[in-house]
Amino acid sequence: MVEATGDIGLIGLAVMGQNLILNAADHGFTVVAYNRTVQKVDHFLANEAKGKSIIGAHSIEELVANLKRPRRIIILVKAGNPVDAFIQQLLPHLDQGDIIIDGGNSHFPDTNRRYEELKQKGIHFVGSGVSGGEEGARYGPSLMPGGAKEAWPHIKEIFQSIAAKTDGEPCCDWVGDAGAGHYVKMVHNGIEYGDMQLICEAYDLLKRVARLPDSEISKVFAKWNKGVLDSFLVEITRDILAYNDDDGKPLVEKILDSAGQKGTGKWTAINALDLGMPVTLIGEAVFARCLSAIKDERVRASKILSGPSVPENAITDKAKFIDDLEQALYASKIISYAQGFQLIREAAKEYKWDLNFPSIALMWRGGCIIRSVFLGEITAAYRENPDLENLLFHPFFNNAISKAQSGWRATLGKAIEFGIPTPAFSTALSFYDGYRSEKLPANLLQAQRDYFGAHTFKVLPEEANERLKVGDWIHINWTGKGGNVSASTYDA
Amino acid sequence: MVEATGDIGLIGLAVMGQNLILNAADHGFTVVAYNRTVQKVDHFLANEAKGKSIIGAHSIEELVANLKRPRRIIILVKAGNPVDAFIQQLLPHLDQGDIIIDGGNSHFPDTNRRYEELKQKGIHFVGSGVSGGEEGARYGPSLMPGGAKEAWPHIKEIFQSIAAKTDGEPCCDWVGDAGAGHYVKMVHNGIEYGDMQLICEAYDLLKRVARLPDSEISKVFAKWNKGVLDSFLVEITRDILAYNDDDGKPLVEKILDSAGQKGTGKWTAINALDLGMPVTLIGEAVFARCLSAIKDERVRASKILSGPSVPENAITDKAKFIDDLEQALYASKIISYAQGFQLIREAAKEYKWDLNFPSIALMWRGGCIIRSVFLGEITAAYRENPDLENLLFHPFFNNAISKAQSGWRATLGKAIEFGIPTPAFSTALSFYDGYRSEKLPANLLQAQRDYFGAHTFKVLPEEANERLKVGDWIHINWTGKGGNVSASTYDA
Repeated sequence: MVEATGDIGLIGLAVMGQNLILNAADHGFTVVAYNRTVQKVDHFLANEAKGKSIIGAHSIEELVANLKRPRRIIILVKAGNPVDAFIQQLLPHLDQGDIIIDGGNSHFPDTNRRYEELKQKGIHFVGSGVSGGEEGARYGPSLMPGGAKEAWPHIKEIFQSIAAKTDGEPCCDWVGDAGAGHYVKMVHNGIEYGDMQLICEAYDLLKRVARLPDSEISKVFAKWNKGVLDSFLVEITRDILAYNDDDGKPLVEKILDSAGQKGTGKWTAINALDLGMPVTLIGEAVFARCLSAIKDERVRASKILSGPSVPENAITDKAKFIDDLEQALYASKIISYAQGFQLIREAAKEYKWDLNFPSIALMWRGGCIIRSVFLGEITAAYRENPDLENLLFHPFFNNAISKAQSGWRATLGKAIEFGIPTPAFSTALSFYDGYRSEKLPANLLQAQRDYFGAHTFKVLPEEANERLKVGDWIHINWTGKGGNVSASTYDA
Repeated sequence: MVEATGDIGLIGLAVMGQNLILNAADHGFTVVAYNRTVQKVDHFLANEAKGKSIIGAHSIEELVANLKRPRRIIILVKAGNPVDAFIQQLLPHLDQGDIIIDGGNSHFPDTNRRYEELKQKGIHFVGSGVSGGEEGARYGPSLMPGGAKEAWPHIKEIFQSIAAKTDGEPCCDWVGDAGAGHYVKMVHNGIEYGDMQLICEAYDLLKRVARLPDSEISKVFAKWNKGVLDSFLVEITRDILAYNDDDGKPLVEKILDSAGQKGTGKWTAINALDLGMPVTLIGEAVFARCLSAIKDERVRASKILSGPSVPENAITDKAKFIDDLEQALYASKIISYAQGFQLIREAAKEYKWDLNFPSIALMWRGGCIIRSVFLGEITAAYRENPDLENLLFHPFFNNAISKAQSGWRATLGKAIEFGIPTPAFSTALSFYDGYRSEKLPANLLQAQRDYFGAHTFKVLPEEANERLKVGDWIHINWTGKGGNVSASTYDA
C-alpha cells in the first residue's frame, strides 16, 4: 500500500470548493478533491487544478485512502441533508480521531447536533464559517471554525495559512464549542445583510433625492472608501456603479430589484427574537429583501398609492447632503455592529460558549464580505476591553456616533420629506434613541397588560412604597370592576 | 346512572377560565369546572360560581361523567406540555366523536400536530383563539376556533352565545382547518403588540416633546377615542393615564418600563420571517419590548451616550402637534393591519387553509384587545371584496393614509429632531414608502451578491436584450478576474 500524501480532503466542487482547494494548494498543501458528480473532478483536474498539488478522487474510499492521519476532510456542499448524507458515507471509512469539517453555511443547531453525534463515535467534528465569496475562497477567506477543540491543533496550520491576513494576522482563530463557529458566521451574514441594505439606502437617496447619475454615485462611494467607510462592500459598490453594459448604460440599472432572503440573515433575525435581543437593523434588512421580492405587488401599489414628489432641486447643497449621508451610513453601521455583538454576547451566555470577542472582530477584519477598516477599530476596542458591555460604550464609537448624529438626523429628515424608504437607517436611529433612554414608554405598556389581562407589573425602585414594593409583581384593579385573580398561568 | 347534564366542561380555573365559565353559565349553559389543584374548584364553587349552573369536578373522570355527548371540553391551561398532559389524561375517558377544545395561546404548529394525532383517534380537536382579557372572557370575548370542522355544529351555539356581539353579529366564526384558529389568534396578538407600541410612542412624544402631564395626555386619548382611533386600547390608555396613586400622582409613572416579549408577538415575527413577508411593524414592536427589557443597560447608556435635548418650547403649536400625531398613529395602524392581513393571506396559501377574511376582521371587531371601529372598516372592505390584495388598495384606506401622510411625516420629523425613539412609526412609514416604490434599490444588492458570490441576478423585463434575457439567472464577471462557476450549490 502506497503511503497517503493528502493533507486535507475536500468534498464539493462548486465555486467555493474549487477555489479553497486552489488556495490550499498554493500554500503547499496536497488536497484531495471529490465531488458526487465525478465528471466535475475530472474537469477540475484537467483545467483549474492542472499541475497543482491536487489529487482527484472518484469515490469516498479513494478520498479517504489518499489522506494522512488524522484525516481531515472538509465538506463544502449545500447546507442541510447533503451534509448529513456525506457524513454517513464517510463514517464507515474513518477512524477514531479523524476530523470532519463542515465548511458550508449550516444552521448552528444542526452543527450542535452533528458535533454531539460524532463525538459519540470518536470523530472530531468542526463547523467552520467560510466567508469571502469566490475571491475570498481563492486568495484568502475569513474562516470561523468551532466544534471539537481537539481538532484545532491538527487544522490550525492549514486554516491559518489559507485564511486572509490583516496586518500580518490571520483572519482565522478558534471560535468556540459545538456550533459556535457557524453561529458567528450566521451573525456575520446577518451583519452583511445589514451593511448591504444600508449601502442600498444610501444609493437610493443619492439617486432619487440628490438625482445623481450612477457614474457620480460611483465617485461618492470611491470617496467614502477612502474614509471611515473603507470596506469591501463600499469598494465593490463603487465598481458596480461604474460598470456599463455594452450600450454604455450602467448595468446595475438593468437588474431586477428583487432579492432573496431565505438564508442566514433570516436565521439571525429569528435567533435575535428567540434570545430577546433587539437586533433591529438585521431584522429590517431581511424584511427589506422580503419587500423587494413582492415586486409585482409593488408595481401595482406604485400606481395607486400617493406620496411626496421629489423636485429637481430637492437638494441645493449636494456636498452637504453627501457628507450627511456618509455620517448616516457610518452611524447606522456602528449601531448594526453594536447590535450584532450584543447578540453574540447573549448567545455566549445562553449556549454557554466561551467566546473570544477580539478574535471574532479580527476574523471579520479581512477576507470576508464585511471586511473593513471599521472592524480594525472594533478589534482594537475589544482588545482594550474584552468585557466591553456594548460597542457604543467604547470612547471611539461613542465619539464617532456623537459626531455623526446631526448628519444622520438630517438625512432621515430628507428621506421622510421626500418619501424615500430608509428602513435600516431609521431603525438604527430609533434604536440609538431608545438605547440611550433611561425611561422608555414600556411603563404604559405594562399598565395596559395589567389592565386588560391582569398580567401584573413591577414598580420603579425610586417610586416604591408600602403598597408598591420593589421586585413584587403587582396587580391593580384599574376599573374597580372584575376579579382579583392575576394571570399566573394564562397569557392572553 | 344519573343522566349527565353538563353542556360543556372546562379545565383550568385561572382568571380566563373562571370568567369563561361564568359567561357560559350566564347564557344558560351548564358548565362542569375542573382544575388540577382541586381546592380551586371548591373555592370557585363556594364563591364566584355560587348559585349558577356550574358543576364542580374533582377528577377527570367526574368531569367527563358529567358531560352530555358528544362531550365538549375546553382546556384553558398554560400553552405547551400541560395541554398535551391533559389531552392524555382525557383520552381514556372519551369516545369517538367527542370534542377537545384548546382555548389557550398554543403555538399553531402544536395545534396542527394535536389535530392530526387526535384525528387518528376519532376525537375532534379544536384550537381556539380566545381574546379579550378577563373582562372579555367574562362578558364576551372574541373567539377564533379552527381545527376539526365536524366539531363546529356542536360548539357553534355555545361559542357564538358567549362571544362578544357587534351590531348584532357574534365575534366568533369558524376560521379554518387544523391550526388556523390559533394562527389567526397569533397574528391578532402580534397586531396587539403593534397597537400597544404605537400608543406608547404617541404617549412618549406627548410627554417628552409636547411636555404634557399625564392628565392632559389622558384627555388627548379621550379625544382620539371619539374619532378614527376609537378602540379599546385607546380607551384604556385614557383611563390608565388618569389613574392616580394614593399620593395623587399618576400610577403609570411609577411602573417599571420593562416589558416581556417571549410570546405570540415573537411567534408572529418569526412566522413572518419564515414566510418571507415584511411584517415590519410587529417585528419592531417585539424588538421594542426587548430593548425595554434591558433596562439596567439602558440606564448606563443614558449616562454615556449623547443626543439632542428637548427645549421647553419645543412645540409651539401643540394642537397641530397632537393632530399630526393622531394622523401618524392612524396611518401606522393602517400599515400594521395591512401587513398582518398580508401575512395571513400568505399563510393561507402556504398552509393550504381556506380562510374567510371578512369573518376574521369581524371576529376582531369586538370582544378582543384590538377591538375598534377601525376593524369595522376592515370588515366592510373585505366584505366588499374578499379577494382584496392589500388593505391599502381599498379606496377607504388608500384615502385615509393619503390624508394622514403630512401629519405622519411631520411627527417623525419632530421625533428625529428631538431624539425620541419611534421604531414602529418609522418602520410603518418606511414600509409605505417602500411598498409604493416601483423600484427599490435591491438591484444594487443583487449586483453585489453576484459580484462577490456569483449568486446571479435577473434582468428587468424592460431592459432585456440578447445577452440579458428575461427569466434567466445571469452571472457577470464584474472584475474580469475570477472563474465562471456560478454559485448553484453554495450560498455564501
